[in-house]
Amino acid sequence: MTDLPIRDELRGVEPYGAPQLDVPVCLNVNENPYPPSAELADDAGKAVAHAVSRLNRYPDREALALRSGLAGYLGAEAGVRLVPEQVWAANGSNEVMVQIMQAFGGPGRTALSFAPTYSMYPEYARNTFTAWISAPRRDDFTIDADDALAAAAEHEPSVIFLASPNNPTGTAVSLDLVRALHDASSAVVVVDEAYAEFRRAGTPSALSLLDSHPRLIVTRTMSKAFAFAGARLGYVAASTAVIDTLRIVRLPYHLSSVTQAVARVALAHAPELQRRVEQLRTTRDELAAWLRTQGLRVPESDANFVLFGTFADRHAVWQSLLDRGVLIRETGPDGWLRVSVGTPDETEAFTVALREVLKT
Amino acid sequence: MTDLPIRDELRGVEPYGAPQLDVPVCLNVNENPYPPSAELADDAGKAVAHAVSRLNRYPDREALALRSGLAGYLGAEAGVRLVPEQVWAANGSNEVMVQIMQAFGGPGRTALSFAPTYSMYPEYARNTFTAWISAPRRDDFTIDADDALAAAAEHEPSVIFLASPNNPTGTAVSLDLVRALHDASSAVVVVDEAYAEFRRAGTPSALSLLDSHPRLIVTRTMSKAFAFAGARLGYVAASTAVIDTLRIVRLPYHLSSVTQAVARVALAHAPELQRRVEQLRTTRDELAAWLRTQGLRVPESDANFVLFGTFADRHAVWQSLLDRGVLIRETGPDGWLRVSVGTPDETEAFTVALREVLKT
Repeated sequence: MTDLPIRDELRGVEPYGAPQLDVPVCLNVNENPYPPSAELADDAGKAVAHAVSRLNRYPDREALALRSGLAGYLGAEAGVRLVPEQVWAANGSNEVMVQIMQAFGGPGRTALSFAPTYSMYPEYARNTFTAWISAPRRDDFTIDADDALAAAAEHEPSVIFLASPNNPTGTAVSLDLVRALHDASSAVVVVDEAYAEFRRAGTPSALSLLDSHPRLIVTRTMSKAFAFAGARLGYVAASTAVIDTLRIVRLPYHLSSVTQAVARVALAHAPELQRRVEQLRTTRDELAAWLRTQGLRVPESDANFVLFGTFADRHAVWQSLLDRGVLIRETGPDGWLRVSVGTPDETEAFTVALREVLKT
Repeated sequence: MTDLPIRDELRGVEPYGAPQLDVPVCLNVNENPYPPSAELADDAGKAVAHAVSRLNRYPDREALALRSGLAGYLGAEAGVRLVPEQVWAANGSNEVMVQIMQAFGGPGRTALSFAPTYSMYPEYARNTFTAWISAPRRDDFTIDADDALAAAAEHEPSVIFLASPNNPTGTAVSLDLVRALHDASSAVVVVDEAYAEFRRAGTPSALSLLDSHPRLIVTRTMSKAFAFAGARLGYVAASTAVIDTLRIVRLPYHLSSVTQAVARVALAHAPELQRRVEQLRTTRDELAAWLRTQGLRVPESDANFVLFGTFADRHAVWQSLLDRGVLIRETGPDGWLRVSVGTPDETEAFTVALREVLKT
């Protein structure tokens, strides 16, 4: 490998990703445990058979039918009005985020976020040669507004990432903070709402701020609430000026005809998918309450996972759970572990295993 | 838009892409005119219905079943032996190329190619902040080896792009030149074989050089010979060290379960698809011969398109063809036009229209 002209910062780096292990209970990557219905699968098969019959042609480069569907979905979900030209989609939030960084970050520029937060953000920065600044959160994983504004003033970022709810802590960000960071900076403020559909009653979406905040970008995904992690469909709502900028850096025909087709089928089945979300919120709240009865700390979660701790040796706990057939994620600040919300049965398997581990 | 922190080099830039017009005869983007068969579409629909039934889970991040299939296909197509770990796949050659540039290009580094060539290469450089050098070809669009080696010595690129056959000229690159550039430089040498299946008898693939050239990267696509432009599946064969480097910069789960499934179905139908390739080569050679009878210059083409010219006002010719319902591409050096090889009927429609235009 050494005689390849590989960039210095990549030498010896391991590819990002949680272990993909074959384990009875997988609660490690915040997947939705409920698969799409047989009806949805059948409709998707039909839609793809139709799409394949003209797959010799390039896809609609603008994906306008899909973007129109996404705008309608977001409008209903968050009670806002969006036109299709305010929405953009790509192969997972990952690709959306890289497009944002290519347009607004890059060499000589800085991106700012607040740790602990999603561990892919520094990878987006690395892949786009953007400087990366991580300012700290409070001990309860909320963000102090004065600290955040001070960090923005000091580092003058061109991109600010705010995950809400935050991964891996589950913590939502207040709209007051979003407003303040937007108005006090010249950055694009990216509110990563990958898990927004799981938010508790009363937690608002930053989508409601779009009209009055032209540098605000709200990202979403079909991976979680839509139970479509395998489809890789991330999307974004913003001003048309922001979207038009992303269109400059997007690779032409980035979104396949097949992806566009299956995502539109998922949108048509959104009501069915959303019923599962209700179940997951209930299970999450029960799980958080149970963990607290075990004497553990659990930050309030607006997501489909909970962080819990602390442990003197979290790796030992993680391994002991895995030995019992339950795979969770060793991530976040030292001493903490993250567990995804599964079905009631999977969650029960986790609690049984954890009870055993805590006793030993 | 001016108060967005958009990068200076992107201001006022238009998104890349040929016009997507609704025209009877589309010969502008080198699509395969023969759609996948009803049997292939049906198999793809079934495969996707199956994939969707567990689409709540993330895809196989390594896409190993697909890479194994691609290795087998390439081995048969070019008479070489490849292991799956020598193959990598992404959402179109575009994404493959950007991954190559993120790993081996980037700020402070230079990519070299030979103009006229594929117009996306500078976009890959721009999106990865890599310096871009374009050295000239001879008047007949072949590359002079001495000139190429001199350019490589002068600019010390870390990435060299050689399209073979070249787009938009159709010109293949000699393996001697590939060897010479590889051995005289420390660059990764990317031979872009997007159109390789259309090469004439006796034109070899650079895949045969992989064993002895560790910095050689051969890229392919399903868009052309496989008639799968809408599926967005590009792939690459190289040393395992190169592939492992691409795995560092790839976005995790970049290739959806659905894309992996439909691409595997296409591979299973490869013999059917390849029969169409034979027809296209025949039509291409007939088309090139006919264009020459009209007194036009036509470089030898190993691709599914031909470049022809020259015209004092190529835009007028392009527009006159479009007025007659035939869309071709105004690209390449001034005075030249590019036409994709269609069905015999489409090609006939083009020749009828062009004959009219040439008379006026």
